[in-house]
Amino acid sequence: MKFNGIGASNGIAIAHIYKLEHPVLAPVKKDITDVDAEIARFDSAIDKSQGELERIRDNAMAKMGKEKADVFNAHLLMLADPEFMDAVRAKVRNEKVNSDFALKEVATMFITMFEGMDNEYMRERAADIKDVSSRVLAHLLGKTIPDLTLIDQEVVIVADDLTPSDTAQLNKKFVKGFATNIGGRTSHSAIMARSLEIPATVGLKNILESVEAGQVVVMNGETGEVIVEPSDDEVKEYQKAAIAFNELKAMLAKFKDQPTVTADGHHLELVANIGTPNDIEGIINNGGEGVGLYRTEFLYMDASVAPSEEEQYQAYKAVLEGMAGKPVVVRTLDIGGDKKLPYLPLPHEENPFLGYRALRMCIGDFKDIFNTQLRALLRASVHGNLKIMFPMVTILPEFRAAKEMLLEQKAALLAEGIAVSEDIEVGMMMEVPASAILADQFAKEADFFSIGTNDLIGYTMAADRMNQKVSYLYQPYNPSILRVVKGIIDASHAEGKWTGMCGEMAGDLTAIPLLVGLGLDEFSMSASSILPARELMSRLSKAEMEKVAEQALQMGTAEEVVELVNNALK
Amino acid sequence: MKFNGIGASNGIAIAHIYKLEHPVLAPVKKDITDVDAEIARFDSAIDKSQGELERIRDNAMAKMGKEKADVFNAHLLMLADPEFMDAVRAKVRNEKVNSDFALKEVATMFITMFEGMDNEYMRERAADIKDVSSRVLAHLLGKTIPDLTLIDQEVVIVADDLTPSDTAQLNKKFVKGFATNIGGRTSHSAIMARSLEIPATVGLKNILESVEAGQVVVMNGETGEVIVEPSDDEVKEYQKAAIAFNELKAMLAKFKDQPTVTADGHHLELVANIGTPNDIEGIINNGGEGVGLYRTEFLYMDASVAPSEEEQYQAYKAVLEGMAGKPVVVRTLDIGGDKKLPYLPLPHEENPFLGYRALRMCIGDFKDIFNTQLRALLRASVHGNLKIMFPMVTILPEFRAAKEMLLEQKAALLAEGIAVSEDIEVGMMMEVPASAILADQFAKEADFFSIGTNDLIGYTMAADRMNQKVSYLYQPYNPSILRVVKGIIDASHAEGKWTGMCGEMAGDLTAIPLLVGLGLDEFSMSASSILPARELMSRLSKAEMEKVAEQALQMGTAEEVVELVNNALK
Repeated sequence: MKFNGIGASNGIAIAHIYKLEHPVLAPVKKDITDVDAEIARFDSAIDKSQGELERIRDNAMAKMGKEKADVFNAHLLMLADPEFMDAVRAKVRNEKVNSDFALKEVATMFITMFEGMDNEYMRERAADIKDVSSRVLAHLLGKTIPDLTLIDQEVVIVADDLTPSDTAQLNKKFVKGFATNIGGRTSHSAIMARSLEIPATVGLKNILESVEAGQVVVMNGETGEVIVEPSDDEVKEYQKAAIAFNELKAMLAKFKDQPTVTADGHHLELVANIGTPNDIEGIINNGGEGVGLYRTEFLYMDASVAPSEEEQYQAYKAVLEGMAGKPVVVRTLDIGGDKKLPYLPLPHEENPFLGYRALRMCIGDFKDIFNTQLRALLRASVHGNLKIMFPMVTILPEFRAAKEMLLEQKAALLAEGIAVSEDIEVGMMMEVPASAILADQFAKEADFFSIGTNDLIGYTMAADRMNQKVSYLYQPYNPSILRVVKGIIDASHAEGKWTGMCGEMAGDLTAIPLLVGLGLDEFSMSASSILPARELMSRLSKAEMEKVAEQALQMGTAEEVVELVNNALK
Repeated sequence: MKFNGIGASNGIAIAHIYKLEHPVLAPVKKDITDVDAEIARFDSAIDKSQGELERIRDNAMAKMGKEKADVFNAHLLMLADPEFMDAVRAKVRNEKVNSDFALKEVATMFITMFEGMDNEYMRERAADIKDVSSRVLAHLLGKTIPDLTLIDQEVVIVADDLTPSDTAQLNKKFVKGFATNIGGRTSHSAIMARSLEIPATVGLKNILESVEAGQVVVMNGETGEVIVEPSDDEVKEYQKAAIAFNELKAMLAKFKDQPTVTADGHHLELVANIGTPNDIEGIINNGGEGVGLYRTEFLYMDASVAPSEEEQYQAYKAVLEGMAGKPVVVRTLDIGGDKKLPYLPLPHEENPFLGYRALRMCIGDFKDIFNTQLRALLRASVHGNLKIMFPMVTILPEFRAAKEMLLEQKAALLAEGIAVSEDIEVGMMMEVPASAILADQFAKEADFFSIGTNDLIGYTMAADRMNQKVSYLYQPYNPSILRVVKGIIDASHAEGKWTGMCGEMAGDLTAIPLLVGLGLDEFSMSASSILPARELMSRLSKAEMEKVAEQALQMGTAEEVVELVNNALK
């Protein structure tokens, strides 16, 4: 029996099936008369969930370490979150409905809100809410949530989907892979699988309903192929593939402590995108040479008020110290567009991607919030190699205004006797066509550029990549994009400055040969992409790639460019 | 007493005040019991409104001609529109409410819908609905709508706002200007004032409440200044200004039948943007040399089903014949973004400007509608000098697909024995940064380019100009925009093709010197901008403007460019 899904985490798995079936939790609306009794029933379900989560947390801590256990600490906090749980109690009280129904309604509202955001971090929060509320619902409805810590032999988990508490309970010693009905490459379970380095296939539609526990299954987490009850030949084929995969992994591991150098001896800088200080471990494990993009907005999004100067200072200091003198590029607050904050009231916009966002707000209505961030960054600057980067700069006066605010805060700190580094580079994202086209003018004033390809491609192609109807226009390899990238790099070099890239394109193995040829200095990507990128770069001749890029710039379509690169890599 | 408003239509007016006060029409919700009686009352108000509109129409026809009378024919049609009036009757019947309240609710819904569109034509329709529903409401509430055809001496009308039936009743012989509390440069009354060539000032906030009928008033429709009970010196000043204005008008009128030639002898093409065949009169009155942009979407927006091939053929034929062999550039259906059609169901989009619109739809889900339009255009091509232009082309394969569909329709028509011109140029809008940057590749396949600056500037600056918070970024003079424009023009010339411009920038007197210097071939604008543009061009040396443009391209900000142009024009 064969299934074709979406490869979500590379690797080959061969094991028996463990069927993970979550109970159906479908509360039916009921009128209640005794409100107090109903709230007591709800509170008792929360208490039971709390005890259960504490047990699972302690178990996870003992078997799998602190990071996994922390997932459950977050869930415990959510159980105690008054904003969430009081909303349920209020609904029970005001509408005289059963608490399981009220909980489902409130949870669905929060989940819909968070899932609608084009942001990995917020979608993770949606998964957490779903998870915690299911646990409480199970208690209210008298059902049981399965306990994965009991698995004690090698299995591939087959499920509808995996919740955060499921993934936090996965023990790599026994769980060799998982395969789910739903999900895509950016769903919670896919992200966790890559982070845990467990092979995974998602979006298999009806695999859970089609298999039996204990059946043998083989799967390829790259191609998305899953075979249940494979033939002997198929098993042999997968065993060979598993060996090849492990050899590749071992080969890549050798690049961990190597410098990033092309075949003809040019050094490139390979750094990582991060969202929180916790991500530093991944950079170090993958031999990253620094942080190319620290997305500070997560500090702001995970809170009900703006983070204090001290809170920010501690986070920035942790990252700078964690990177021990390696460069850390911090992007200042990049909110708006699809990222909203509960404490920043923004008007509805017809086209938020073309609206009031990022630096436009920081030098506009939200100068106070921006000044607090600048102070925290400047204070942290003495703890490492800080570079500050402004997002969404469109016109020169905006860059000047932001830099002026930074210098004012620096002067104020020095006047207070607080130390500030004298070597902070101040650069900007290149993600708006206007500034990219005028890069020669910006290069006179900015210390460096970092190309944000996700937005730059969206604006240049006039296509929102989250919109399925026009996603075909989101073309990183379109010659127009390559021309814009080349213009930015050349302009920075003409002024003795450097250019990095922190959009998804920087870690794309088809784009890397072109970017090397175009002269990109710094490549910032997710930590897990660093070793494959370094290995590829070691095989590329920069001189040859320059010729390839030159040809690509004169082509008419993205398809021609891809063919050119594929031929060049043969 | 001085007022400062928004200059909406150039010219100087000196006259006595006529206060136009519309009755307050504020229906209060009432429960009714006799539904049939209420509907009879409603129908009677419609009948009375119909009689009234027929009288006004005949009066307008006799005194001011067919065009003005047609406004009232449109209103009469609206009175008979089942979609609108049946919605009111249904509301009365289903909710048992009074018909005046029901009418107000239904009208408000339609008005809100149409006003929300970034489109002059649809906003005009909103004004019509407001107007017709007010007339019926007045009858239901026992109030009277003033009759402006009774004015028989020179006046300046002071009003809260002017409705379409007000403006259709204006007799230029007596009405020397108007001044309104509300409105902006694109509101209905402002557009009508410019079309009627009556001086007008809008957005004066509280002028209606502050003046008495019969007071003397002077106003300047360019600066927005209005003085009630002016001093003798002020009257003299305005009289002088009126003379100067009339001299300027006479001077401009001399350019009507002149060719468009720069001071150093270079010919430029000055053409107009139109929405319907009715607009041709304006082009001819202003000496336009053709149509640079025929926005065909109005054919689609003013209907409840897609227009038939025959209906479109008649419209295209009328424009081609009206222009008598002069070039007519027809843009194919440009719907989506902020323009919706009731019969084209489109999904909600987070960022409609970056979504499924224009050609993306025509070569995608709506091929049938597109094929019908292409057939109608091809059939009409034998009646004049037709050029077909595709909007929102982003990548080469899109242009190829559209051209392929055109050639298929042509072959089909020829096979049916229907004549098609062999000399149709097929070009494209340049309004997406990606295609602009790759213009050299497109120039090999397109016969001409027309730069749509409204969208091109929006995408390049990543700013929705309808969004007040970022409208400061909508910068036509930003050097990045000038560089993109230059790239397009140079690319077309290198392949022996031509480039026009049909965005608002083409008629902007500050932009024109730069565009002449950049080598733009064709300037398409509203008809009323043609003579001032031709006069300015006659004073410009193209060789000098080339130097100015060259300097502008190397500047950092829009402000520097404006200063440069101002100095060059001194």
